[in-house]
Amino acid sequence: MIAAKGYAAQTAESPLAPWQFERREVGAHDVQIEILYCGVCHTDIHLTRNEWFPGIFPMVPGHEIVGRISAIGSDARKFRIGDLGGVGVMVDSCRECADCKNGQEQFCSVAPVQTYNNLGHDGLPVYGGYSNILVVNEDFVHHISEKLDLAGVAPLLCAGITTYSPLKRWNVGKGHKLAVVGLGGLGHMGVKFGKALGAEVTVISTSPSKKEAAKQLGADHFIISREESEMKAAFKTFDFVLDTVSGNSDVNPYLAILKTNGIYVNVGMPAKPWEVSSFTLATGNKVIAGSGAGGLPETQQMLDFCAEHGIVSDIELIDIKDIHTAYDRMQKGDVRYRFVIDMKTL
Amino acid sequence: MIAAKGYAAQTAESPLAPWQFERREVGAHDVQIEILYCGVCHTDIHLTRNEWFPGIFPMVPGHEIVGRISAIGSDARKFRIGDLGGVGVMVDSCRECADCKNGQEQFCSVAPVQTYNNLGHDGLPVYGGYSNILVVNEDFVHHISEKLDLAGVAPLLCAGITTYSPLKRWNVGKGHKLAVVGLGGLGHMGVKFGKALGAEVTVISTSPSKKEAAKQLGADHFIISREESEMKAAFKTFDFVLDTVSGNSDVNPYLAILKTNGIYVNVGMPAKPWEVSSFTLATGNKVIAGSGAGGLPETQQMLDFCAEHGIVSDIELIDIKDIHTAYDRMQKGDVRYRFVIDMKTL
Repeated sequence: MIAAKGYAAQTAESPLAPWQFERREVGAHDVQIEILYCGVCHTDIHLTRNEWFPGIFPMVPGHEIVGRISAIGSDARKFRIGDLGGVGVMVDSCRECADCKNGQEQFCSVAPVQTYNNLGHDGLPVYGGYSNILVVNEDFVHHISEKLDLAGVAPLLCAGITTYSPLKRWNVGKGHKLAVVGLGGLGHMGVKFGKALGAEVTVISTSPSKKEAAKQLGADHFIISREESEMKAAFKTFDFVLDTVSGNSDVNPYLAILKTNGIYVNVGMPAKPWEVSSFTLATGNKVIAGSGAGGLPETQQMLDFCAEHGIVSDIELIDIKDIHTAYDRMQKGDVRYRFVIDMKTL
Repeated sequence: MIAAKGYAAQTAESPLAPWQFERREVGAHDVQIEILYCGVCHTDIHLTRNEWFPGIFPMVPGHEIVGRISAIGSDARKFRIGDLGGVGVMVDSCRECADCKNGQEQFCSVAPVQTYNNLGHDGLPVYGGYSNILVVNEDFVHHISEKLDLAGVAPLLCAGITTYSPLKRWNVGKGHKLAVVGLGGLGHMGVKFGKALGAEVTVISTSPSKKEAAKQLGADHFIISREESEMKAAFKTFDFVLDTVSGNSDVNPYLAILKTNGIYVNVGMPAKPWEVSSFTLATGNKVIAGSGAGGLPETQQMLDFCAEHGIVSDIELIDIKDIHTAYDRMQKGDVRYRFVIDMKTL
């Protein structure tokens, strides 16, 4: 076993704190990564506190991981020592089911393994990226361009693919009007991708204070969602709504601003179910589409797209000891736009 | 004005009864149709009884209309006297909004006119197809092949296009597994179209007694929705679910049987909103899509497709005096699969 250190929650009630643990030896198809940066996702808060379901403790969170390859298994061919590598929300899958064969390993029917709070195929718990070192099957490690600011790349592995995937699935691009609801870690990536894909992008936010920030990110327009007149004026004007807000329990205002054949996707994952009327959807052939992260090929495609367009996440780099303050600020929406842990502070 | 007769509800509380009324004169772009057959749609029951919203009375229902052209306006060029013509759920629209220009006149943003229970562009009420004669702008009349059984064509104008449109939008065809939920007026058309488009079709019904009928219509498989084991065995096996049941207030069992990227469409229009969780949709990138009838070009395309494949609705032809019995039987689901009024009995 390989000695590792990180920050872990020992129980759902205890705050993150330093922890020594072990990673598996580097297997034939594994690579070992010296973690340089790890993004801080809202999911980390939900899971370490059992807000969605009971977790596996001790829990080392973190699934927006970038670093350098420091060891390579005997049969691993994808990387060389010193290459950059990135790991997102999953670290293994069955490779044989229809979803795996279709490049949607995140929905693997047999044995999907999340990056943390899950058991690996060896039956042992897997630990995430708030740590110095990671051992992963090479298939689940992505190539990262040396051209990009590496700390800003980390959030691409979750927030990036989560917003890129639905925009690509639904062919959002030139000539389309895209509304991005919410301007946080996910939303600001939605704006960047929407613009890079050629769409006309409107940010919709509860907070007028976000207007200037939206403009700086490249958004063409800004709507305050609490202003009824602004939402009314937007009636039937959008081809696509990418809702990144986890608190949006009513989808109807966003269905109303869709054009005929328009698509609504929520990647904010509100806990409360929506009430949706068949009549609302039928009037205008409207669509509510789910979107969960992205598969391996699409994640690499997204990273290559980012390298080509010079896209990274806007971040605040933090020391790992400040993770508690970061969590507190995230819960108030006080971050532009993603905290990333500088792992050399571990 | 042109003298017409038909069956009308004088109020939401009174049963349909014979009524003499007037149609407008044949305008420059109008045609006059001698109605031969009119299908009986569930909507006719809902609207004449104010079950959805307050209606315009007296109300002559009927929006599945076929007949022969008997007069032509001075500038109308689409038909000759004696041609067959069909009219569906709408008789006018603005022709200038994005939806009209895109061939989705059913969603016209400005001035859509339903076939009955609506006001025409002249401000006068329009009356539907439970009648001997109809005057309509020629654009809203479709060509019908002489090859098809005309009484069986009538339901294509609503039940037909309502089921054809979503299957076409989502490219259902060869290699796809299609589930059709419910085997009534809509469902039996869904089976016919699904098979003609090349899909493998499964009928899902609460009623084991429909198994033989499903087979006769060409369905490949049959599932009893109340049998938990059968639904469990169907987990993640369908590309597309076409739900035609108006009473299905829980979509979750049907989302569960969708494969990754699968599409659920409900055209049965349940009155009660669904509860939909963002997590359910995100797991497998699932889609709930609305579908409301079809536009003019697609309706003609559907009728041509039916002529090519010999598709009509399976019907029970009735005398108009038996409309009350028909309504009663429809509410019990006791019809295979659509009542059509023989208008010479008027």
